[in-house]
Amino acid sequence: MFKKILIIGCGLIGSSILRSSLNKKITKKIFVYEKSRENILKIKKINSKIIILKTLDSRISDIDFVILSTPMSQYAKVIPYLNKFLNSKSIITDVGSTKKNILKLKKKKLNKSLDWILSHPISGSEVSGPEYGTKNLFLNKWCIIVSDKNKKKVKKVIRFWKKLGSKVILMDPVEHDKIFSLTSHLPHLIAYNLIKTAQDFQKKQRKNVIKFSAGGLRDFSRIAASNEIMWRDIFFNNKKNMINAINVFIKNLNSFKKNIQNLEDKKLIKKLINSKKVRKQIINLKHDIAKPDFGRE
Amino acid sequence: MFKKILIIGCGLIGSSILRSSLNKKITKKIFVYEKSRENILKIKKINSKIIILKTLDSRISDIDFVILSTPMSQYAKVIPYLNKFLNSKSIITDVGSTKKNILKLKKKKLNKSLDWILSHPISGSEVSGPEYGTKNLFLNKWCIIVSDKNKKKVKKVIRFWKKLGSKVILMDPVEHDKIFSLTSHLPHLIAYNLIKTAQDFQKKQRKNVIKFSAGGLRDFSRIAASNEIMWRDIFFNNKKNMINAINVFIKNLNSFKKNIQNLEDKKLIKKLINSKKVRKQIINLKHDIAKPDFGRE
Repeated sequence: MFKKILIIGCGLIGSSILRSSLNKKITKKIFVYEKSRENILKIKKINSKIIILKTLDSRISDIDFVILSTPMSQYAKVIPYLNKFLNSKSIITDVGSTKKNILKLKKKKLNKSLDWILSHPISGSEVSGPEYGTKNLFLNKWCIIVSDKNKKKVKKVIRFWKKLGSKVILMDPVEHDKIFSLTSHLPHLIAYNLIKTAQDFQKKQRKNVIKFSAGGLRDFSRIAASNEIMWRDIFFNNKKNMINAINVFIKNLNSFKKNIQNLEDKKLIKKLINSKKVRKQIINLKHDIAKPDFGRE
Repeated sequence: MFKKILIIGCGLIGSSILRSSLNKKITKKIFVYEKSRENILKIKKINSKIIILKTLDSRISDIDFVILSTPMSQYAKVIPYLNKFLNSKSIITDVGSTKKNILKLKKKKLNKSLDWILSHPISGSEVSGPEYGTKNLFLNKWCIIVSDKNKKKVKKVIRFWKKLGSKVILMDPVEHDKIFSLTSHLPHLIAYNLIKTAQDFQKKQRKNVIKFSAGGLRDFSRIAASNEIMWRDIFFNNKKNMINAINVFIKNLNSFKKNIQNLEDKKLIKKLINSKKVRKQIINLKHDIAKPDFGRE
Protein backbone atom coordinates (compact mmCIF):
# COMPACT_ATOMS: atom_id res chain seq x y z
CA MET A 1 0.00 0.00 0.00
CA PHE A 2 2.90 2.36 0.81
CA LYS A 3 6.62 2.29 0.08
CA LYS A 4 7.74 4.19 3.15
CA ILE A 5 5.88 4.95 6.36
CA LEU A 6 7.16 7.18 9.14
CA ILE A 7 5.79 6.97 12.67
CA ILE A 8 6.65 10.04 14.74
CA GLY A 9 6.48 9.24 18.45
CA CYS A 10 6.25 5.58 19.32
CA GLY A 11 4.35 5.04 22.57
CA LEU A 12 1.30 2.83 23.05
CA ILE A 13 -0.52 4.08 19.93
CA GLY A 14 2.56 4.57 17.71
CA SER A 15 3.93 1.13 18.49
CA SER A 16 0.51 -0.44 17.91
CA ILE A 17 0.40 1.18 14.45
CA LEU A 18 3.94 -0.14 13.94
CA ARG A 19 3.07 -3.71 14.92
CA SER A 20 -0.18 -3.71 13.00
CA SER A 21 1.45 -2.22 9.86
CA LEU A 22 4.18 -4.85 9.96
CA ASN A 23 1.62 -7.58 10.49
CA LYS A 24 -0.57 -6.41 7.59
CA LYS A 25 2.47 -5.76 5.35
CA ILE A 26 1.19 -2.27 4.62
CA THR A 27 4.58 -0.82 3.68
CA LYS A 28 7.94 -1.85 2.27
CA LYS A 29 9.97 0.21 4.71
CA ILE A 30 8.98 1.50 8.12
CA PHE A 31 10.70 4.41 9.90
CA VAL A 32 10.24 5.46 13.49
CA TYR A 33 11.27 8.84 14.84
CA GLU A 34 11.86 8.53 18.55
CA LYS A 35 14.21 10.37 20.89
CA SER A 36 13.94 8.40 24.13
CA ARG A 37 16.88 5.95 24.34
CA GLU A 38 14.86 3.66 26.56
CA ASN A 39 12.03 3.54 24.02
CA ILE A 40 14.42 2.98 21.10
CA LEU A 41 15.74 -0.18 22.77
CA LYS A 42 12.19 -1.42 23.24
CA ILE A 43 11.23 -0.62 19.63
CA LYS A 44 14.26 -2.42 18.17
CA LYS A 45 13.10 -5.58 19.90
CA ILE A 46 9.75 -5.50 18.06
CA ASN A 47 11.24 -6.14 14.61
CA SER A 48 14.74 -5.91 13.15
CA LYS A 49 13.43 -4.23 9.95
CA ILE A 50 12.39 -1.03 11.74
CA ILE A 51 14.57 1.95 10.84
CA ILE A 52 15.05 4.31 13.78
CA LEU A 53 15.56 8.01 13.11
CA LYS A 54 16.97 10.17 15.89
CA THR A 55 16.62 13.34 13.82
CA LEU A 56 14.15 14.40 11.13
CA ASP A 57 16.19 15.31 8.02
CA SER A 58 16.48 14.70 4.27
CA ARG A 59 16.03 10.95 4.85
CA ILE A 60 12.30 11.58 5.21
CA SER A 61 11.96 13.41 1.87
CA ASP A 62 10.41 10.45 0.04
CA ILE A 63 8.13 9.15 2.80
CA ASP A 64 4.59 8.37 1.53
CA PHE A 65 2.78 8.39 4.81
CA VAL A 66 3.60 10.13 8.10
CA ILE A 67 1.73 9.36 11.31
CA LEU A 68 2.05 11.79 14.19
CA SER A 69 1.61 9.86 17.40
CA THR A 70 3.40 12.01 19.96
CA PRO A 71 1.32 13.81 22.61
CA MET A 72 -0.58 16.62 20.85
CA SER A 73 1.50 19.30 22.56
CA GLN A 74 4.51 18.07 20.56
CA TYR A 75 2.95 18.47 17.10
CA ALA A 76 3.98 22.14 16.75
CA LYS A 77 7.63 21.22 17.26
CA VAL A 78 7.55 18.61 14.49
CA ILE A 79 5.80 20.65 11.76
CA PRO A 80 8.85 22.78 10.77
CA TYR A 81 10.75 19.57 9.88
CA LEU A 82 7.85 18.27 7.80
CA ASN A 83 7.69 21.65 6.01
CA LYS A 84 11.41 21.54 5.32
CA PHE A 85 11.90 17.93 4.24
CA LEU A 86 8.63 16.33 3.15
CA ASN A 87 7.46 16.18 -0.50
CA SER A 88 3.98 17.24 -1.59
CA LYS A 89 2.91 13.74 -2.62
CA SER A 90 3.15 12.42 0.91
CA ILE A 91 0.22 12.27 3.30
CA ILE A 92 0.39 13.31 6.95
CA THR A 93 -2.04 12.04 9.55
CA ASP A 94 -2.19 12.11 13.35
CA VAL A 95 -3.95 10.28 16.16
CA GLY A 96 -4.84 13.23 18.39
CA SER A 97 -7.91 13.01 20.60
CA THR A 98 -9.18 16.53 19.81
CA LYS A 99 -9.49 17.86 16.28
CA LYS A 100 -10.42 21.57 16.20
CA ASN A 101 -7.05 22.59 17.69
CA ILE A 102 -5.12 20.40 15.24
CA LEU A 103 -7.00 21.82 12.27
CA LYS A 104 -6.09 25.31 13.51
CA LEU A 105 -2.45 24.31 13.97
CA LYS A 106 -2.34 22.80 10.50
CA LYS A 107 -3.78 25.96 8.89
CA LYS A 108 -1.38 28.17 10.79
CA LYS A 109 1.86 26.21 10.57
CA LEU A 110 1.84 23.61 7.81
CA ASN A 111 3.09 24.47 4.30
CA LYS A 112 0.14 24.81 1.90
CA SER A 113 1.82 22.31 -0.42
CA LEU A 114 1.50 19.53 2.17
CA ASP A 115 -1.60 17.50 3.05
CA TRP A 116 -2.58 16.53 6.58
CA ILE A 117 -5.68 14.37 6.91
CA LEU A 118 -6.70 14.27 10.58
CA SER A 119 -7.59 10.96 12.20
CA HIS A 120 -8.52 9.76 15.69
CA PRO A 121 -8.51 6.04 16.41
CA ILE A 122 -10.85 5.37 19.36
CA SER A 123 -8.65 2.94 21.20
CA GLY A 124 -6.14 2.98 24.00
CA SER A 125 -5.48 1.83 27.51
CA GLU A 126 -4.38 3.13 30.89
CA VAL A 127 -0.79 2.14 30.14
CA SER A 128 1.76 4.04 28.03
CA GLY A 129 4.98 3.11 26.25
CA PRO A 130 5.96 1.04 23.19
CA GLU A 131 6.16 -2.21 25.16
CA TYR A 132 2.38 -2.19 25.65
CA GLY A 133 1.48 -1.77 21.97
CA THR A 134 -0.45 -4.56 20.26
CA LYS A 135 -1.23 -5.31 16.63
CA ASN A 136 -4.92 -5.74 17.44
CA LEU A 137 -5.43 -2.37 19.14
CA PHE A 138 -7.52 -0.97 16.27
CA LEU A 139 -9.42 -4.14 15.43
CA ASN A 140 -13.19 -3.43 15.22
CA LYS A 141 -12.67 -0.05 16.85
CA TRP A 142 -13.87 3.25 15.42
CA CYS A 143 -11.46 5.55 13.68
CA ILE A 144 -12.74 9.07 13.07
CA ILE A 145 -11.39 10.89 10.02
CA VAL A 146 -11.95 14.60 9.58
CA SER A 147 -13.49 15.46 6.20
CA ASP A 148 -11.05 17.22 3.83
CA LYS A 149 -11.25 18.64 0.32
CA ASN A 150 -8.45 16.34 -0.89
CA LYS A 151 -10.76 13.37 -1.42
CA LYS A 152 -8.07 11.17 -2.95
CA LYS A 153 -5.82 11.42 0.08
CA VAL A 154 -8.76 10.99 2.44
CA LYS A 155 -9.54 7.74 0.64
CA LYS A 156 -5.99 6.55 1.17
CA VAL A 157 -6.10 7.33 4.89
CA ILE A 158 -9.44 5.50 5.15
CA ARG A 159 -7.88 2.47 3.41
CA PHE A 160 -4.96 2.57 5.84
CA TRP A 161 -7.13 2.45 8.96
CA LYS A 162 -9.41 -0.18 7.46
CA LYS A 163 -6.35 -2.34 6.78
CA LEU A 164 -5.52 -2.10 10.50
CA GLY A 165 -9.04 -3.38 11.23
CA SER A 166 -10.78 -0.12 12.13
CA LYS A 167 -14.33 0.89 11.31
CA VAL A 168 -13.95 4.32 9.71
CA ILE A 169 -16.34 7.27 9.87
CA LEU A 170 -15.95 10.82 8.53
CA MET A 171 -16.77 13.63 10.92
CA ASP A 172 -16.74 17.38 11.25
CA PRO A 173 -14.05 18.49 13.78
CA VAL A 174 -16.48 20.59 15.85
CA GLU A 175 -18.89 17.66 16.13
CA HIS A 176 -15.99 15.32 16.93
CA ASP A 177 -14.78 17.44 19.85
CA LYS A 178 -18.31 17.74 21.24
CA ILE A 179 -19.09 14.02 21.06
CA PHE A 180 -15.80 12.89 22.58
CA SER A 181 -15.97 15.47 25.35
CA LEU A 182 -18.92 13.38 26.56
CA THR A 183 -17.93 9.80 25.72
CA SER A 184 -14.27 9.97 26.61
CA HIS A 185 -12.90 13.23 28.02
CA LEU A 186 -15.51 13.79 30.75
CA PRO A 187 -15.38 10.13 31.93
CA HIS A 188 -11.60 10.42 32.32
CA LEU A 189 -11.82 13.71 34.21
CA ILE A 190 -14.52 12.24 36.46
CA ALA A 191 -12.35 9.19 37.18
CA TYR A 192 -9.40 11.44 38.10
CA ASN A 193 -11.70 13.53 40.29
CA LEU A 194 -13.15 10.50 42.07
CA ILE A 195 -9.71 9.18 42.93
CA LYS A 196 -8.69 12.65 44.13
CA THR A 197 -11.80 12.74 46.34
CA ALA A 198 -10.99 9.32 47.83
CA GLN A 199 -7.39 10.42 48.44
CA ASP A 200 -8.53 13.60 50.21
CA PHE A 201 -10.91 11.55 52.36
CA GLN A 202 -8.19 9.07 53.26
CA LYS A 203 -5.85 11.87 54.29
CA LYS A 204 -8.48 13.68 56.34
CA GLN A 205 -9.93 10.62 58.06
CA ARG A 206 -6.57 8.85 58.44
CA LYS A 207 -8.35 5.69 57.43
CA ASN A 208 -7.33 3.12 54.87
CA VAL A 209 -9.99 3.66 52.24
CA ILE A 210 -8.07 2.25 49.28
CA LYS A 211 -7.83 -1.11 51.08
CA PHE A 212 -11.57 -1.60 50.51
CA SER A 213 -11.62 -0.35 46.93
CA ALA A 214 -13.19 -3.49 45.43
CA GLY A 215 -16.68 -2.03 45.34
CA GLY A 216 -16.46 0.48 42.48
CA LEU A 217 -13.37 2.60 43.13
CA ARG A 218 -11.17 -0.08 41.52
CA ASP A 219 -12.59 0.44 38.01
CA PHE A 220 -12.20 4.20 38.23
CA SER A 221 -8.62 3.88 39.47
CA ARG A 222 -7.70 2.11 36.25
CA ILE A 223 -8.98 4.96 34.07
CA ALA A 224 -7.36 7.50 36.40
CA ALA A 225 -3.97 5.88 35.84
CA SER A 226 -3.89 7.08 32.22
CA ASN A 227 -1.03 9.17 30.85
CA GLU A 228 -0.97 12.68 32.34
CA ILE A 229 0.61 14.48 29.37
CA MET A 230 -1.92 13.06 26.94
CA TRP A 231 -4.83 13.99 29.18
CA ARG A 232 -3.55 17.46 30.04
CA ASP A 233 -3.35 18.10 26.27
CA ILE A 234 -6.89 16.82 25.74
CA PHE A 235 -8.44 18.78 28.64
CA PHE A 236 -6.70 22.01 27.59
CA ASN A 237 -7.42 21.62 23.87
CA ASN A 238 -11.08 20.81 24.41
CA LYS A 239 -11.52 23.47 27.07
CA LYS A 240 -14.88 24.90 26.02
CA ASN A 241 -16.58 21.52 25.62
CA MET A 242 -15.03 20.28 28.88
CA ILE A 243 -16.38 23.27 30.83
CA ASN A 244 -19.86 22.74 29.34
CA ALA A 245 -19.77 19.02 30.11
CA ILE A 246 -18.58 19.63 33.69
CA ASN A 247 -21.38 22.16 34.23
CA VAL A 248 -24.08 19.75 33.05
CA PHE A 249 -22.51 16.96 35.14
CA ILE A 250 -22.60 19.12 38.29
CA LYS A 251 -26.20 20.20 37.57
CA ASN A 252 -27.25 16.55 37.27
CA LEU A 253 -25.29 15.57 40.38
CA ASN A 254 -26.99 18.30 42.40
CA SER A 255 -30.32 16.91 41.23
CA PHE A 256 -29.28 13.41 42.42
CA LYS A 257 -28.25 14.98 45.73
CA LYS A 258 -31.68 16.55 46.09
CA ASN A 259 -33.33 13.18 45.33
CA ILE A 260 -31.29 11.57 48.11
CA GLN A 261 -31.72 14.47 50.56
CA ASN A 262 -35.53 14.40 50.17
CA LEU A 263 -35.82 10.61 49.76
CA GLU A 264 -37.52 11.13 46.36
CA ASP A 265 -38.14 7.47 45.69
CA LYS A 266 -39.89 7.54 42.29
CA LYS A 267 -37.61 10.16 40.75
CA LEU A 268 -34.47 8.31 41.83
CA ILE A 269 -35.64 4.87 40.72
CA LYS A 270 -36.65 6.28 37.32
CA LYS A 271 -33.13 7.66 36.80
CA LEU A 272 -31.43 4.44 37.92
CA ILE A 273 -33.57 2.33 35.59
CA ASN A 274 -33.01 4.72 32.69
CA SER A 275 -29.23 4.31 32.72
CA LYS A 276 -29.57 0.57 32.12
CA LYS A 277 -30.74 1.39 28.60
CA VAL A 278 -27.31 2.76 27.75
CA ARG A 279 -25.71 -0.48 28.90
CA LYS A 280 -27.99 -2.45 26.59
CA GLN A 281 -27.14 -0.17 23.67
CA ILE A 282 -23.40 -0.53 24.34
CA ILE A 283 -23.68 -4.32 24.42
CA ASN A 284 -25.80 -4.32 21.24
CA LEU A 285 -23.13 -2.15 19.59
CA LYS A 286 -20.54 -4.74 20.70
CA HIS A 287 -18.46 -2.17 22.60
CA ASP A 288 -18.65 -4.55 25.53
CA ILE A 289 -19.83 -8.06 26.28
CA ALA A 290 -22.87 -9.01 28.33
CA LYS A 291 -20.83 -11.34 30.53
CA PRO A 292 -21.12 -10.07 34.11
CA ASP A 293 -18.03 -8.59 35.70
CA PHE A 294 -17.15 -9.75 39.23
CA GLY A 295 -13.83 -7.90 39.31
CA ARG A 296 -10.70 -9.09 37.53
CA GLU A 297 -9.04 -12.15 39.08
CA MET B 1 -20.65 -26.35 60.66
CA PHE B 2 -24.43 -25.89 60.79
CA LYS B 3 -27.36 -28.26 60.73
CA LYS B 4 -29.82 -25.94 59.01
CA ILE B 5 -29.20 -22.73 57.10
CA LEU B 6 -31.91 -20.41 55.79
CA ILE B 7 -31.25 -17.91 53.01
CA ILE B 8 -33.93 -15.23 52.82
CA GLY B 9 -33.99 -13.66 49.34
CA CYS B 10 -32.01 -15.47 46.70
CA GLY B 11 -30.68 -13.07 44.07
CA LEU B 12 -27.06 -12.67 43.00
CA ILE B 13 -25.67 -12.59 46.56
CA GLY B 14 -28.13 -15.07 48.11
CA SER B 15 -27.61 -17.64 45.38
CA SER B 16 -23.83 -17.20 45.60
CA ILE B 17 -24.01 -17.95 49.34
CA LEU B 18 -26.20 -20.93 48.44
CA ARG B 19 -23.76 -22.31 45.85
CA SER B 20 -20.72 -21.66 48.00
CA SER B 21 -22.33 -23.23 51.10
CA LEU B 22 -23.26 -26.34 49.13
CA ASN B 23 -19.77 -26.50 47.65
CA LYS B 24 -18.08 -26.17 51.05
CA LYS B 25 -20.58 -28.54 52.71
CA ILE B 26 -21.22 -25.97 55.44
CA THR B 27 -24.64 -27.29 56.40
CA LYS B 28 -26.65 -30.48 56.43
CA LYS B 29 -29.87 -28.88 55.18
CA ILE B 30 -30.28 -25.65 53.25
CA PHE B 31 -33.53 -23.67 53.06
CA VAL B 32 -34.32 -20.79 50.75
CA TYR B 33 -37.17 -18.36 51.30
CA GLU B 34 -38.10 -16.86 47.97
CA LYS B 35 -41.42 -15.59 46.64
CA SER B 36 -40.73 -15.01 42.94
CA ARG B 37 -41.94 -18.03 40.92
CA GLU B 38 -39.42 -17.27 38.22
CA ASN B 39 -36.56 -17.26 40.73
CA ILE B 40 -37.78 -20.47 42.43
CA LEU B 41 -37.52 -22.33 39.10
CA LYS B 42 -33.97 -21.05 38.67
CA ILE B 43 -32.97 -21.98 42.24
CA LYS B 44 -34.33 -25.52 41.94
CA LYS B 45 -31.98 -26.06 39.01
CA ILE B 46 -28.91 -25.27 41.15
CA ASN B 47 -29.26 -28.34 43.38
CA SER B 48 -32.07 -30.78 44.10
CA LYS B 49 -31.29 -30.75 47.87
CA ILE B 50 -32.41 -27.13 48.30
CA ILE B 51 -35.65 -26.80 50.29
CA ILE B 52 -37.76 -23.89 49.06
CA LEU B 53 -40.02 -22.09 51.53
CA LYS B 54 -42.78 -19.88 50.17
CA THR B 55 -43.81 -18.75 53.64
CA LEU B 56 -41.87 -18.22 56.87
CA ASP B 57 -43.52 -20.36 59.55
CA SER B 58 -42.81 -22.95 62.26
CA ARG B 59 -40.58 -24.86 59.83
CA ILE B 60 -37.85 -22.31 60.52
CA SER B 61 -37.94 -22.74 64.31
CA ASP B 62 -34.80 -24.90 64.50
CA ILE B 63 -32.69 -23.06 61.91
CA ASP B 64 -29.10 -22.44 63.16
CA PHE B 65 -28.15 -19.69 60.79
CA VAL B 66 -30.31 -17.18 58.87
CA ILE B 67 -28.87 -14.96 56.13
CA LEU B 68 -30.89 -11.97 55.02
CA SER B 69 -30.04 -11.27 51.40
CA THR B 70 -33.10 -9.39 50.16
CA PRO B 71 -32.76 -5.68 49.32
CA MET B 72 -32.33 -3.80 52.62
CA SER B 73 -35.77 -2.19 52.31
CA GLN B 74 -37.31 -5.66 52.76
CA TYR B 75 -35.63 -6.46 56.10
CA ALA B 76 -38.35 -4.77 58.18
CA LYS B 77 -41.01 -7.01 56.63
CA VAL B 78 -39.11 -10.18 57.52
CA ILE B 79 -38.26 -9.42 61.16
CA PRO B 80 -41.75 -10.13 62.62
CA TYR B 81 -41.51 -13.71 61.27
CA LEU B 82 -38.06 -14.19 62.78
CA ASN B 83 -39.40 -12.84 66.11
CA LYS B 84 -42.32 -15.24 65.97
CA PHE B 85 -40.67 -18.46 64.81
CA LEU B 86 -36.91 -18.41 65.44
CA ASN B 87 -35.26 -19.87 68.56
CA SER B 88 -32.71 -17.95 70.63
CA LYS B 89 -29.81 -20.27 69.78
CA SER B 90 -29.92 -19.34 66.11
CA ILE B 91 -27.79 -16.60 64.55
CA ILE B 92 -29.09 -14.05 62.10
CA THR B 93 -26.84 -12.20 59.69
CA ASP B 94 -27.37 -10.00 56.63
CA VAL B 95 -25.43 -8.77 53.62
CA GLY B 96 -26.62 -5.15 53.54
CA SER B 97 -24.29 -2.48 52.14
CA THR B 98 -24.94 0.07 54.92
CA LYS B 99 -24.80 -0.82 58.58
CA LYS B 100 -25.93 2.06 60.82
CA ASN B 101 -29.52 1.79 59.56
CA ILE B 102 -29.59 -1.98 60.06
CA LEU B 103 -28.26 -1.69 63.61
CA LYS B 104 -31.04 0.81 64.31
CA LEU B 105 -33.65 -1.48 62.76
CA LYS B 106 -32.37 -4.43 64.79
CA LYS B 107 -32.54 -2.47 68.07
CA LYS B 108 -36.03 -1.24 67.29
CA LYS B 109 -37.68 -4.33 65.86
CA LEU B 110 -35.83 -7.54 66.71
CA ASN B 111 -36.73 -9.52 69.85
CA LYS B 112 -34.06 -9.08 72.53
CA SER B 113 -33.77 -12.86 72.78
CA LEU B 114 -32.50 -13.11 69.21
CA ASP B 115 -28.97 -12.37 67.92
CA TRP B 116 -28.24 -10.56 64.67
CA ILE B 117 -24.56 -10.20 63.75
CA LEU B 118 -24.28 -7.72 60.86
CA SER B 119 -22.07 -8.55 57.89
CA HIS B 120 -21.26 -6.98 54.55
CA PRO B 121 -19.44 -9.04 51.91
CA ILE B 122 -17.63 -6.65 49.52
CA SER B 123 -18.52 -8.40 46.31
CA GLY B 124 -21.11 -8.17 43.60
CA SER B 125 -21.64 -7.37 39.97
CA GLU B 126 -23.82 -5.24 37.70
CA VAL B 127 -26.18 -8.19 37.16
CA SER B 128 -28.94 -9.42 39.48
CA GLY B 129 -30.83 -12.67 39.87
CA PRO B 130 -30.06 -16.20 41.11
CA GLU B 131 -28.85 -17.36 37.69
CA TYR B 132 -25.78 -15.12 37.97
CA GLY B 133 -24.64 -16.39 41.37
CA THR B 134 -21.28 -18.14 41.62
CA LYS B 135 -19.62 -20.20 44.32
CA ASN B 136 -16.45 -18.10 44.07
CA LEU B 137 -18.08 -14.70 44.58
CA PHE B 138 -16.57 -14.25 48.05
CA LEU B 139 -13.18 -15.80 47.38
CA ASN B 140 -10.38 -13.49 48.57
CA LYS B 141 -12.87 -10.64 48.97
CA TRP B 142 -13.33 -8.63 52.14
CA CYS B 143 -16.27 -9.31 54.41
CA ILE B 144 -16.93 -6.64 57.03
CA ILE B 145 -18.50 -7.80 60.29
CA VAL B 146 -19.91 -5.31 62.78
CA SER B 147 -18.51 -5.78 66.28
CA ASP B 148 -21.05 -7.18 68.75
CA LYS B 149 -21.06 -8.06 72.45
CA ASN B 150 -21.99 -11.67 71.71
CA LYS B 151 -18.39 -12.73 70.95
CA LYS B 152 -19.26 -16.39 70.56
CA LYS B 153 -21.77 -15.77 67.81
CA VAL B 154 -19.48 -13.21 66.13
CA LYS B 155 -16.82 -15.95 65.99
CA LYS B 156 -19.25 -18.29 64.32
CA VAL B 157 -20.19 -15.70 61.68
CA ILE B 158 -16.49 -15.02 61.04
CA ARG B 159 -15.93 -18.76 60.57
CA PHE B 160 -18.83 -18.91 58.11
CA TRP B 161 -17.46 -16.16 55.84
CA LYS B 162 -13.94 -17.52 56.07
CA LYS B 163 -15.24 -20.89 54.93
CA LEU B 164 -16.68 -19.17 51.85
CA GLY B 165 -13.20 -17.79 51.17
CA SER B 166 -13.61 -14.22 52.49
CA LYS B 167 -11.02 -12.14 54.33
CA VAL B 168 -12.89 -10.96 57.44
CA ILE B 169 -12.45 -7.69 59.32
CA LEU B 170 -14.40 -6.27 62.27
CA MET B 171 -15.60 -2.69 61.97
CA ASP B 172 -17.64 -0.07 63.72
CA PRO B 173 -20.90 0.63 61.78
CA VAL B 174 -20.30 4.39 61.64
CA GLU B 175 -16.82 3.90 60.23
CA HIS B 176 -18.13 1.28 57.82
CA ASP B 177 -20.74 3.60 56.35
CA LYS B 178 -18.21 6.42 55.96
CA ILE B 179 -15.57 4.29 54.23
CA PHE B 180 -17.98 2.64 51.81
CA SER B 181 -19.66 5.93 50.95
CA LEU B 182 -16.30 6.76 49.32
CA THR B 183 -15.11 3.42 47.91
CA SER B 184 -18.41 2.10 46.63
CA HIS B 185 -21.49 4.31 47.01
CA LEU B 186 -20.08 7.52 45.51
CA PRO B 187 -18.47 5.69 42.54
CA HIS B 188 -21.82 4.10 41.73
CA LEU B 189 -23.70 7.41 41.98
CA ILE B 190 -21.06 9.08 39.80
CA ALA B 191 -21.39 6.34 37.18
CA TYR B 192 -25.19 6.76 37.14
CA ASN B 193 -24.74 10.53 36.87
CA LEU B 194 -22.25 10.27 34.01
CA ILE B 195 -24.58 8.05 32.00
CA LYS B 196 -27.46 10.45 32.71
CA THR B 197 -25.30 13.35 31.46
CA ALA B 198 -24.44 11.48 28.25
CA GLN B 199 -28.12 10.65 27.73
CA ASP B 200 -29.12 14.29 28.19
CA PHE B 201 -26.44 15.36 25.72
CA GLN B 202 -27.57 12.79 23.19
CA LYS B 203 -31.16 13.98 23.45
CA LYS B 204 -30.27 17.66 23.18
CA GLN B 205 -27.76 17.32 20.35
CA ARG B 206 -29.72 14.62 18.50
CA LYS B 207 -26.40 12.89 17.94
CA ASN B 208 -25.47 9.29 18.51
CA VAL B 209 -23.08 9.61 21.41
CA ILE B 210 -23.43 6.07 22.74
CA LYS B 211 -22.20 4.72 19.40
CA PHE B 212 -18.73 6.05 20.24
CA SER B 213 -18.70 4.95 23.86
CA ALA B 214 -15.51 2.89 23.70
CA GLY B 215 -13.33 5.63 25.13
CA GLY B 216 -14.34 5.63 28.78
CA LEU B 217 -18.12 5.74 28.89
CA ARG B 218 -18.27 1.97 28.39
CA ASP B 219 -16.75 1.15 31.79
CA PHE B 220 -19.09 3.52 33.60
CA SER B 221 -22.11 2.11 31.78
CA ARG B 222 -21.40 -1.27 33.32
CA ILE B 223 -21.46 0.09 36.87
CA ALA B 224 -24.54 2.18 36.04
CA ALA B 225 -26.43 -0.97 35.05
CA SER B 226 -26.51 -2.18 38.67
CA ASN B 227 -29.75 -3.05 40.44
CA GLU B 228 -31.89 0.04 41.09
CA ILE B 229 -33.66 -1.20 44.25
CA MET B 230 -30.39 -2.15 45.92
CA TRP B 231 -28.83 1.20 45.07
CA ARG B 232 -31.86 3.28 46.04
CA ASP B 233 -31.72 1.55 49.43
CA ILE B 234 -28.00 2.28 49.78
CA PHE B 235 -28.21 5.95 48.75
CA PHE B 236 -31.18 6.61 51.05
CA ASN B 237 -29.75 4.71 54.02
CA ASN B 238 -26.36 6.38 53.78
CA LYS B 239 -27.86 9.80 53.11
CA LYS B 240 -25.62 11.93 55.31
CA ASN B 241 -22.35 10.38 54.11
CA MET B 242 -23.55 10.53 50.49
CA ILE B 243 -24.32 14.26 50.72
CA ASN B 244 -20.89 14.91 52.25
CA ALA B 245 -19.14 12.84 49.59
CA ILE B 246 -21.07 14.56 46.77
CA ASN B 247 -20.15 17.98 48.18
CA VAL B 248 -16.42 17.17 48.31
CA PHE B 249 -16.63 15.66 44.82
CA ILE B 250 -18.23 18.84 43.41
CA LYS B 251 -15.67 21.04 45.20
CA ASN B 252 -12.82 19.03 43.64
CA LEU B 253 -14.49 19.04 40.22
CA ASN B 254 -14.84 22.82 40.33
CA SER B 255 -11.14 23.02 41.11
CA PHE B 256 -10.37 20.82 38.06
CA LYS B 257 -12.63 23.11 36.01
CA LYS B 258 -10.63 26.13 37.15
CA ASN B 259 -7.36 24.36 36.23
CA ILE B 260 -8.71 23.74 32.72
CA GLN B 261 -10.28 27.19 32.35
CA ASN B 262 -7.01 28.94 33.28
CA LEU B 263 -4.71 26.36 31.62
CA GLU B 264 -2.98 25.76 34.96
CA ASP B 265 -0.43 23.29 33.65
CA LYS B 266 1.57 22.41 36.77
CA LYS B 267 -1.43 22.13 39.08
CA LEU B 268 -3.28 19.85 36.65
CA ILE B 269 -0.30 17.59 35.90
CA LYS B 270 0.37 17.19 39.63
CA LYS B 271 -3.19 16.00 40.21
CA LEU B 272 -3.13 13.59 37.26
CA ILE B 273 0.18 12.06 38.40
CA ASN B 274 -1.05 11.78 41.97
CA SER B 275 -3.99 9.54 41.09
CA LYS B 276 -1.66 6.93 39.62
CA LYS B 277 -0.50 6.18 43.17
CA VAL B 278 -3.94 4.81 44.02
CA ARG B 279 -3.78 2.48 41.05
CA LYS B 280 -0.44 1.12 42.30
CA GLN B 281 -1.87 0.60 45.78
CA ILE B 282 -4.89 -1.22 44.38
CA ILE B 283 -2.70 -3.54 42.33
CA ASN B 284 -0.39 -4.16 45.31
CA LEU B 285 -3.47 -5.02 47.36
CA LYS B 286 -4.46 -7.49 44.61
CA HIS B 287 -7.87 -5.85 44.08
CA ASP B 288 -6.98 -5.72 40.41
CA ILE B 289 -4.27 -7.00 38.10
CA ALA B 290 -1.59 -4.90 36.41
CA LYS B 291 -2.46 -6.32 32.99
CA PRO B 292 -3.49 -3.41 30.77
CA ASP B 293 -7.12 -3.18 29.74
CA PHE B 294 -7.86 -2.48 26.08
CA GLY B 295 -11.62 -2.98 26.43
CA ARG B 296 -13.30 -6.36 26.74
CA GLU B 297 -13.35 -8.43 23.56
